[in-house]
Amino acid sequence: MADALQRLVSLLQQLPSIGEKTATRLVFHVLASPPEYGLALSAAVKDVIERVRPCEICGNLSEPSPCSICSDQRRDASILCVVEKVQDLLAIEKSHEYHGLYHVLRGVLNPLDGAGPDQIRVEDLLKRLPGQVKEVIVATSSSVEGEATALYLKKRIEPMDIRVSRIASGIPVGGELEYVDRGTLGRALSGRREMS
Amino acid sequence: MADALQRLVSLLQQLPSIGEKTATRLVFHVLASPPEYGLALSAAVKDVIERVRPCEICGNLSEPSPCSICSDQRRDASILCVVEKVQDLLAIEKSHEYHGLYHVLRGVLNPLDGAGPDQIRVEDLLKRLPGQVKEVIVATSSSVEGEATALYLKKRIEPMDIRVSRIASGIPVGGELEYVDRGTLGRALSGRREMS
Repeated sequence: MADALQRLVSLLQQLPSIGEKTATRLVFHVLASPPEYGLALSAAVKDVIERVRPCEICGNLSEPSPCSICSDQRRDASILCVVEKVQDLLAIEKSHEYHGLYHVLRGVLNPLDGAGPDQIRVEDLLKRLPGQVKEVIVATSSSVEGEATALYLKKRIEPMDIRVSRIASGIPVGGELEYVDRGTLGRALSGRREMS
Repeated sequence: MADALQRLVSLLQQLPSIGEKTATRLVFHVLASPPEYGLALSAAVKDVIERVRPCEICGNLSEPSPCSICSDQRRDASILCVVEKVQDLLAIEKSHEYHGLYHVLRGVLNPLDGAGPDQIRVEDLLKRLPGQVKEVIVATSSSVEGEATALYLKKRIEPMDIRVSRIASGIPVGGELEYVDRGTLGRALSGRREMS
């Protein structure tokens, strides 16, 4: 195989879930496409590396900083949703159910891995709260680390007289009960709500 | 999502078997990696587009032309293996079972799609044969089109007093007979060989 091909295949193989066969298939697809496509792809990868930076306020990845969410005057600045990572922010944005602001922690508390409050963006969060914020929604995942992080944040934020809520855990919409794991079912039952 | 991110996700989605979720995951992986990785990836895509060309002799994709296979004096120039596409050539090379030269047809005969002998590299092949070549191995796939192409090549090459052979069809090595399709089993049986 030509050196340039081999190099691209090797680099692609470093991406998650891409093995040698998939990498080779992708490279041949790029070669079979009009050259404009490959050149645009090359430029787009470079752009992302060179231009995209974390927003200085919320930590969202963005070209301008503050990001388009932080600088959007129509969003409700009295609610702040705390997420572990930018991907979670994007997932919530796609639901179109939330119109407040965000704070990306960039991690969770994980004492075993040595990730304490100083390793994630907790102090930045606490500094943002006084003033406008009336509610903090903790939307960390419902893993052990996510729950521990949520509890820690609650303890730190409540003395500031700000409401702290937790995103709901339960059965997925459209999901079959039969296939839902025990832990999720337990949560769904204990978190049951009266029907109105 | 930042414009540059969105653009890269859209471009990646044009690749086979990559949907929006996978594309997003790949982009975040690139962003989480050292910037050198992303810049190397960008450069490698550009290099492939700008430097890799079909070999003027066999049609293999290569930086130098003639390619490293055609210019390797240790290879047996008396055997020529005809394949449909470069990927097939790479697969045969990986088997380390073949030491002759290649000819990439870049397609197969497919009258329904309007692909006749002029659409694939048949004339280039016939021009290469007189002189050194003593055997042509037709390694097109065992689809209807691949078989039709093999028969056509046999008809054109045999009058030149050159042996034409066909790559064997049968059960895959390590494959369970139980799961082999009927067509392949039929071929495997009719192509049986006496045990030595």
